[in-house]
Order: sequence, then C-alpha cells, then structure tokens
Amino acid sequence: MKFKILKQSKKSLARLAEFETAHGKIQTPVFMPCATVGAVKGISPEELKAIGFKIILGNTYHLYLRPGEKLIKKMGGLQKFINWPGAMLTDSGGFQVFSLGKNYIDYETKEIKDSLVKVTNRGVWFKSHLDGSKHLFTPEKVIDIQKDLGSDILMVLDECTEHPATYDRAKKSMELTHEWAKRASDYWKKNGNKKQSIFGIVQGSTFKDLREKSAEYISSLSFDGIAVGGVSVGEGKENMYNVMKWIGPILPKEKPHYLMGIGEPEDILEGVKNGIDMFDCVLPTRLARHGTIWTTTNWKTFKKIDLRKSLFRNDKKILMPGCGCSTCKAGFTRAYISHLIREKEMFGMRLTSIHNLWLLNHLVEKIREDISSDRY
Amino acid sequence: MKFKILKQSKKSLARLAEFETAHGKIQTPVFMPCATVGAVKGISPEELKAIGFKIILGNTYHLYLRPGEKLIKKMGGLQKFINWPGAMLTDSGGFQVFSLGKNYIDYETKEIKDSLVKVTNRGVWFKSHLDGSKHLFTPEKVIDIQKDLGSDILMVLDECTEHPATYDRAKKSMELTHEWAKRASDYWKKNGNKKQSIFGIVQGSTFKDLREKSAEYISSLSFDGIAVGGVSVGEGKENMYNVMKWIGPILPKEKPHYLMGIGEPEDILEGVKNGIDMFDCVLPTRLARHGTIWTTTNWKTFKKIDLRKSLFRNDKKILMPGCGCSTCKAGFTRAYISHLIREKEMFGMRLTSIHNLWLLNHLVEKIREDISSDRY
Repeated sequence: MKFKILKQSKKSLARLAEFETAHGKIQTPVFMPCATVGAVKGISPEELKAIGFKIILGNTYHLYLRPGEKLIKKMGGLQKFINWPGAMLTDSGGFQVFSLGKNYIDYETKEIKDSLVKVTNRGVWFKSHLDGSKHLFTPEKVIDIQKDLGSDILMVLDECTEHPATYDRAKKSMELTHEWAKRASDYWKKNGNKKQSIFGIVQGSTFKDLREKSAEYISSLSFDGIAVGGVSVGEGKENMYNVMKWIGPILPKEKPHYLMGIGEPEDILEGVKNGIDMFDCVLPTRLARHGTIWTTTNWKTFKKIDLRKSLFRNDKKILMPGCGCSTCKAGFTRAYISHLIREKEMFGMRLTSIHNLWLLNHLVEKIREDISSDRY
Repeated sequence: MKFKILKQSKKSLARLAEFETAHGKIQTPVFMPCATVGAVKGISPEELKAIGFKIILGNTYHLYLRPGEKLIKKMGGLQKFINWPGAMLTDSGGFQVFSLGKNYIDYETKEIKDSLVKVTNRGVWFKSHLDGSKHLFTPEKVIDIQKDLGSDILMVLDECTEHPATYDRAKKSMELTHEWAKRASDYWKKNGNKKQSIFGIVQGSTFKDLREKSAEYISSLSFDGIAVGGVSVGEGKENMYNVMKWIGPILPKEKPHYLMGIGEPEDILEGVKNGIDMFDCVLPTRLARHGTIWTTTNWKTFKKIDLRKSLFRNDKKILMPGCGCSTCKAGFTRAYISHLIREKEMFGMRLTSIHNLWLLNHLVEKIREDISSDRY
C-alpha cells in the first residue's frame, strides 16, 4: 500500500496523509461509516458520496453468514454487490464473534443459548447468532473470506480481550493475538495479492507495557497498516486516551494507524493528536436512529441533543445552525424530526443519520485542512 | 375547487382532468402515496417529487393523536411541517378509528384491550391505540382538525361499514354516513374556507341499490369531490369492481371521483375506466417493505415478485428491465436488494418502496397520455 504523508504537524503526532486503493485515493485522517450487512443503515451510496465519504466499512462476520462471501465474490465483489463507488475496509469478524456470537437462538426450542465461543490456538469456534450453525474462524480462514469479499483493506483475526481482564489474562490473550498475526502475515505473503492491503491489530488491554509490546510486535510484521483494537469494549475514555498516548509514539510513521470502533467527535480529535489516521464507528448512525444528534459551534467541543425530549416538540430550528448536511439544508425542523423519531418512522432515522455522518465527515475534513495549514 | 376535464374518453368513463389547490395544480387520474404520520415510510419529499408525485395523503387519526393538529397548525400547516412542496389530502380519521382504534394497549397492565369503539348519531367514541385515552370524532370535529392541519383536500367523517354486513346493517350504516355527510356539508358552508376543498364519501357495502342511492345522495350535497369508501375492507376484487360499475355512471361528471384505499395497478386501470380520478393506497410501500415488487412489460398486466425467494439470491438483474425508477437506474441488483430485505435493512425497504411508487406513478402518467391521445 502506498501511504504518503503530505504534512506532519510540528506540535503533535497529527499528520495529513493519503493512500491509494483499487477503489480510489483516500485522504487521512478519515472517518469510515459502518455498512454492517452491506448498507449503512437506511442510507444510500449516493448520499454517502454526497456527504464526502470515500471509504466505508463492511462486517465480515455478518457478510460471511449472510449472504456469504462466495456469493459476493460471484457478484463481482463487495463494492460492486452493494453498488458503492468507493473503497471498503472489512474487519476480521473477530469482534462480532466475541460479542454477537456469544448467544444464539435455538430455532426448535426458541431458547437463547450460550454459543460457547471456544478459542483454541487454531482459531475460534462459534455458533451463528442467526441459526446456531457451528463455524470456525482461523487467521487463514478470515483472510480467505476477505479475499473473496474483495475489500480494499482487510484485517487480521485477533482475540478481542474481554474487559476487565487481569494482567495475566490480558498477556495470554495478547500472545495469542500475536501468534495469529504472525500466521496471518505468513499466510498473506504466500496467498495475498496487490489489490488488497492487510492491517495488523494491537491488543494488550489496559496495561501500558502490554500495549507497548504489542505495538512493537505488530509493527515488526509486514502489514500495510496498524490497527488498535480493544479500545471500544467498555474501557472508558480515560483508558482509551491512555492507550493512544502509550502507543502513538511507537507506531511506525510510514504506515497508517487505525483506531477501531471509535468514535465520538472528541475521540477523533484526541486520536488525531496521537497520530491516528483512520476511525470507524456505528455510533453516529446508532445514536441517530434513537434520536440523538451531535451539534457544535466551534468544532472543538460537541453537544449531544436527544430529540425525544419534550422541548423539541415545537422547535422550528433546524438541527444545527449553519450545518451543511442535506437534512439541515433542506430545512427539516427539530419539531418534525423529533415527531418522526417518536413515531419510529424510518425517514426520521434517515434525517438524523445523515446529519451525524455529515458532522463526523466535516470534522475530519476540517482536521485535514487544519493540519495542512499548521493550525492543528 | 376548479375541476376541469381536459379530455373525455369516447370508449369509457375515463377522463383526463386537472384541479387546482393552494399547493399546485394536479392532473388526474392520479395516485397519492400515504404519508401516514407525516412521512411516506422511509422516503424523502425530494424523492417523491423526483418520482413525479404532486399530491400525497396524510392520516388525520394519526396526526391528531401525535403530534396533534394544534401543533401542526402552529408549525405552519402540514405541508410546511413535513417540508413537502406539493399538495396534501387528509382522510377523516374514520377508517383508522374503526380499524386501529379497535384495540389499545393498557400501559399499566400491558394487556391488549378492546377499545369499545362506540358509534352514536353524534359521532364515534374511541380510545387511542397509543395510550388508551378517550376521544370523540364528530363530523364537525374532524373538519376542525383538518382545517388546523391545513390539507388541500379534506374528507368528511363516514362510518366504515364492517364486512360482511347484512343488508339491514349496511342500510342503517349508510344512513348514518349520509346524516354525517349532511352535517359536514352544512358545517363547511358556515365554517369552511376557499383554500381547502371537501369531499363526501359514498358507502353502501356490497349492495347495488344502496351504493346507487348513496352515490346519488352524496352527489346531491355541495361537496367539491366524491369519494367511494368501504371498498378496501376485505370485500374482494369482484365486489370492488362491481361497486365501480354501479356508481361510475351516477357520479357527477363535473366533480373529481376518488376511490379510497385502492390499489393495485390492475385496480387503477379498472377504476379509471369507470371514471375514477384519484387513488391512494399503502400497498406499494407496505408490499415493498416486505420485499414484494411489481413488474410489468406491457403496463396492462402486472406481476408481483417476492424478492425473499431463494432464486433471487444471485440474480444480477435489476428489479425491472427498462424501469425508470432511481433504484433500477442506479443498477441495484435483485441479489443485493433481496439480501437487504432478508436482513430487514431499512435501505432495502427504501429501494423497493421507490420502485413500487415509481411504477404506480408511471402507470397513471401513461394512463393520462393514453386518454389524451385517444388510446385508452
């Protein structure tokens, strides 16, 4: 992967950079919306493009189970299948195995059963949350799946350490992640291709020395980029910010750095300072569907507004004064949108999702401008 | 209401006509999508406009309960509140009282209770399906509500006769509808305005003489248009077609005729032949959300396709060859859309809804062209 730093901030680790994919050039810092099952919930590719997104994320766990990577391959790859003109990153599926895969519904008895996610050195056994069928993800298998999906950037399998974890448990879990990362790296050397890039993942829970060790080890392997995992599993902001500070200076400057599953606008600002280039999160759309939007006046501090509150019932204002999103530009009022959210009307969720996505994309656009002009 | 017949077919009762509203000129025959709570489920005003719709329908029952007609009035009326640049028709709420209002959930015990919808000569008592609160709709009250909503066309309160009904029951029910229609007409004469138009509703169940009598009586009152009710409550197509044939020749030619709650493409073709000018139905969007789309090659016969069927999993075709809807023009495949529908992903529902709505609008556009050029 060609990763080019266009401008390095003098005051922090922040940098403006760009990399090329088979589906276009991406400038960083960048935020990637999540198209979990092959669509950003309720939003069209056209709308994503209009907001300014050039790369979005797909979830391997979901797409592997339905419709299946073989079908997607047959349909010409993920980008073509979902009619998305830009680039895509897929996760390894690991995170979902450890969260969604935990339980499944027995279709005969209708009971919720523990899927007994079982981790061995070989890989991780889990049962589909859809039908209870048994599956094995190995470092090699998830690469094969993502090769079939045809995403531009693929992620290695890691063990997403539960939180909280003891030092011993976090260390053992990190060592397994490293073992898997090495196997993935070796497998990619033999079976990889030049169209796709592969990123390794740093783990190590909330322990400084483990995070540092992991950052060093993962950086030593021949990955195209380095991701930081396990920071969005309930560790809290303080720990997340600590992890960034610990590993920011260690991560190799010549590779893109991706903070997985983050985040809120403030987290992106903090991440960029610590040299993070890429972010993804379901939060902007998930919050939006429940009626919560972000607003800001200074692009440094952000406010969450819960539109279901009574005071918005007759609020004739748009979501955010001066906002450039299509919801605000079309003049939809808080009163109307809050009504739709109360009614659980899909169109209301669309209007708020567009706003939150636009806000995050505009934030990274502003960050890029600020780095470029030495104002960051 | 200025209603102008532009062309009368020589072979049938079909006619090309137009009428003016405070929110634009409407050509008929026309199909009106349903914006139940103030939005066509999942679809933007911009998209409706792009399809070609100039008038949509809002539901008085829903909007009265939430957010309330007083709030909508304060926000500048329904069109402004929902940011719709075209015209709107509101129903009287009667149909929903008799269907949705039947049961409600007791919020304390969580039980589903019978709301004991109670019809008296004065009006109809019902309990909100949302919170069990008690309400009375009278012919005068629903006019006041719709005046506050500010719709371009408002409907009188009728009793939606249950199906099946005995002759005696249908006759009594029709007589109540007539009594209410007269009261509505008188009330409108004193309290109406020139910005809004008011339509009466023909009832009479499945009985020829009752339907004829009702058509004559409602036509004798000073309404701007005549609607035909009670044909979408499970009477079946044969009865619906019979009703149209019975009353088509009776309805006053100088007023618009509106077949309520219909319908499927074939019903629209049949309705137009019998002099129907206006149609509305939740079917295109409801079917779409469950994955069923209409296709046609000749615009005379139509096929329903259930995209959840297995054979569409790897179907690379668009929904309908040559289709002009934005879903088909953008190239979304049946394979992708069927995947999204299986996943209950909102974006899939959007894609199919747009297709079905476009198809119905294109059908009435073609009908108008055909009448205009004597091909109907």
